[in-house]
Amino acid sequence: MNDNFFIKKTIELAVENVKSGHGGPFAALIVKNGKIISTGVNSVTIENDPTAHAEIKAIRNACEKLNDYQLKDCIIYSSCEPCPMCLGAIYWSRPKKLIFAATKNDAASAGFDDSFIYDEIDTKIDSRHLETTIINEPDKFLPFKTWINFQKKIKY
Amino acid sequence: MNDNFFIKKTIELAVENVKSGHGGPFAALIVKNGKIISTGVNSVTIENDPTAHAEIKAIRNACEKLNDYQLKDCIIYSSCEPCPMCLGAIYWSRPKKLIFAATKNDAASAGFDDSFIYDEIDTKIDSRHLETTIINEPDKFLPFKTWINFQKKIKY
Repeated sequence: MNDNFFIKKTIELAVENVKSGHGGPFAALIVKNGKIISTGVNSVTIENDPTAHAEIKAIRNACEKLNDYQLKDCIIYSSCEPCPMCLGAIYWSRPKKLIFAATKNDAASAGFDDSFIYDEIDTKIDSRHLETTIINEPDKFLPFKTWINFQKKIKY
Repeated sequence: MNDNFFIKKTIELAVENVKSGHGGPFAALIVKNGKIISTGVNSVTIENDPTAHAEIKAIRNACEKLNDYQLKDCIIYSSCEPCPMCLGAIYWSRPKKLIFAATKNDAASAGFDDSFIYDEIDTKIDSRHLETTIINEPDKFLPFKTWINFQKKIKY
């Protein structure tokens, strides 16, 4: 079983996800040492969870199985180029590799345009479409100060 | 109760999260019509979930309570400027406003440097630290084609 096998399987899961009425046309699959350890499909509407994208679901499933918050030596296959939320999640989970098939341009041509969020991240806070306020609260650094001084912290 | 009240409350939750040994120095809180409808704290290590950042937790909790995948008319308060994953999640959840206290520079000075992920998102795929391969699989557009033709789809 090679990358082509796993990416085909991921695409099949994405097709099934639509046909079954479960959710959007996206799937992800995580492989460790040549074995599939988790899958994830878009479940936003069925679970009422805007974070339930395929990659997030697959990462959470894999971490639960591995009993770890990192995906050491894992490869993440995605049917489509990850959105910024999922790409962020992939970095936090620290896999060794990401492989995907459709690009964000392919997704855009089907009406899934993540480029708006990519553009917003690149925009200065006071020019974003999302109204954003920074409150310069005097205690804003207290959580970090507490963290720095906390002896039993588990770094992540 | 105004923005200052809610952001102070959010900062308190972040401090408590560290002191209790539950997780990192971050909290978020979601308000609708002047009432707190959910909170979230960093739970990455205790839940073995790299996506369990404060904002993601608060969004998931709020959506469960509202029985919706969008946070219409909600304000998200965060003790710290969201990382790219959480900012993406905030856009997908479509709140009316985001308010935070500490900036990503404050976080970086405490050892939480999200700028690496911000930088990677801005980097061309073949130059990223995360090894990434695009497989131009012939069926890559099939999930989208299935979606376009699927009559009962729930758009999100």
